[in-house]
Amino acid sequence: MSAPLVGVDLGGTNIRAACATGPTTHGPITWRSTPAANGPEAVIDAVADCIREASGGQTPAGVAIGIPGPLDPGTGVVHAAPHLAGWTEVPARDLLSARTGSPVAVRNDASMAGFAEWKAGAGAGARHFIFITASTGIGGALVLDGIPHDGIGSAGEVGHMPIDPQGPPCLQGHPGCLEGTASGTAIAAAAKRALAAGRESSLRDLPADELTAKDVENAANDGDALAIELFAGAGRALGRAVGGLINLLAPEVIVIGGGLINAGDLLFAPLRAAVPEMAFAYPLSKCRIVPAALGTDAGLVGAIAWAVHTFG
Amino acid sequence: MSAPLVGVDLGGTNIRAACATGPTTHGPITWRSTPAANGPEAVIDAVADCIREASGGQTPAGVAIGIPGPLDPGTGVVHAAPHLAGWTEVPARDLLSARTGSPVAVRNDASMAGFAEWKAGAGAGARHFIFITASTGIGGALVLDGIPHDGIGSAGEVGHMPIDPQGPPCLQGHPGCLEGTASGTAIAAAAKRALAAGRESSLRDLPADELTAKDVENAANDGDALAIELFAGAGRALGRAVGGLINLLAPEVIVIGGGLINAGDLLFAPLRAAVPEMAFAYPLSKCRIVPAALGTDAGLVGAIAWAVHTFG
Repeated sequence: MSAPLVGVDLGGTNIRAACATGPTTHGPITWRSTPAANGPEAVIDAVADCIREASGGQTPAGVAIGIPGPLDPGTGVVHAAPHLAGWTEVPARDLLSARTGSPVAVRNDASMAGFAEWKAGAGAGARHFIFITASTGIGGALVLDGIPHDGIGSAGEVGHMPIDPQGPPCLQGHPGCLEGTASGTAIAAAAKRALAAGRESSLRDLPADELTAKDVENAANDGDALAIELFAGAGRALGRAVGGLINLLAPEVIVIGGGLINAGDLLFAPLRAAVPEMAFAYPLSKCRIVPAALGTDAGLVGAIAWAVHTFG
Repeated sequence: MSAPLVGVDLGGTNIRAACATGPTTHGPITWRSTPAANGPEAVIDAVADCIREASGGQTPAGVAIGIPGPLDPGTGVVHAAPHLAGWTEVPARDLLSARTGSPVAVRNDASMAGFAEWKAGAGAGARHFIFITASTGIGGALVLDGIPHDGIGSAGEVGHMPIDPQGPPCLQGHPGCLEGTASGTAIAAAAKRALAAGRESSLRDLPADELTAKDVENAANDGDALAIELFAGAGRALGRAVGGLINLLAPEVIVIGGGLINAGDLLFAPLRAAVPEMAFAYPLSKCRIVPAALGTDAGLVGAIAWAVHTFG
């Protein structure tokens, strides 16, 4: 039996790893809690431990890991990881390679999830493919002319395109980018601002400090006018961005994933209505806009698929 | 001597053609006035006549033509050409191939100009390249992983990405896209709105109906505060868009051409100031943002280079 290939999904809460059993399939998933507060070395140790268990103690022939934050897949250096303390300019590839004795490929978590949707999910078989993931933040991934597109670093940051000069900044401080208007964080922040400004809403019954996009989704499903309006605004901004991406890249398919898509038509109806206002009729008529298929496993499946793609 | 390859630049005013003498060099340029008002057949006849003169009566081994409007390079059908009467869903490739007896490649004029800047201009040698042309409208072209990127149609429409939900529409009616805010047409329209709203400006001395972006540029160079402000607004919008494109595509170089760049620092100073507010520090630090090098010949040089690329 040849040495295993391992995929890893490093999140702010959990680390998950599994061995590839095919291009996009895998054996049992091992996991650890992420020691996020303990610094990069502790997290890398936990990742290595999780890999060791997944591979049954064998040295993997290759490891691919998705990490949440802007990073350089060429050098394996993580520039920042907002949910992991002390992760600034961390040479994750080299640290993990030293721990495991294996070659390591590092990519952004959204890149991994997008790769999974392209290999085995809602975008399978597309020559030109855009992935957008909308949850706490907004990330993405591109496959163009059949090639995952990284550019000179980590391309695919669809959340950090300008959408509104009056819009709020994202957590990285980009004024008026898509993430600042349409992410889960942005929806929760807009809800808090509306309540502070005196708007009527069932959201008043919840503790304002802890209000999340999920709370807003629940209120919208119960018919709350403010909550419906907030999802409509986010969906509309996403739809305008999708229209612009169609004009720019003329893809065959745009796959939209992330936690926000659980809101269904609360998000997708205004999104779909806004696209044709911005997109040229022709590429639009040949472009599918569809929800992601792989759910919360996309990041891990993508890491496994990337390990096979890179080291298989 | 083998059969010539011919490049053609079809504009609203003139048709220009020349034979390739190298990948990006050419022999004497022939030209005709564009019979723009007389419909597609008359224009195609004039193009064929111009090609015949350029090739000295020989049947070309291949013809590449740049046409101003949204079109499908795969089928050679022009969806629309705003400055040419009656050009709606015109099968330009097949019409011209029948007239000339040669295989024909059709591309958007901005795609041709961008290809020229990538082959022989300010973006020569780049693996990941974005071209933006800002004049009457805003167009563009992409080269990604060394491949001119068309997607499923005519990708590269950088002017038709959303920039401001409150912004004016472009001529194609996209509400608040970049072209609606930062094109020459948009600058002239904003000047007219400001004058109608009572703003002081030396532009009042000109006939309001005929006011152009060039007039605004001249007034700005003479120190007119409104004119300077209008270019600053366009430059700022372009800079935000450039920042977003860096995040999305992580290019090595972004080349900005078109008539507006003659305004120099009136446009480029606010543009360069806005980019780092939007772009992630890392890809930005490795990305050059430079003016185009080939001027008004870029469209013709690009068509010649495309003829060589496709049929050479």
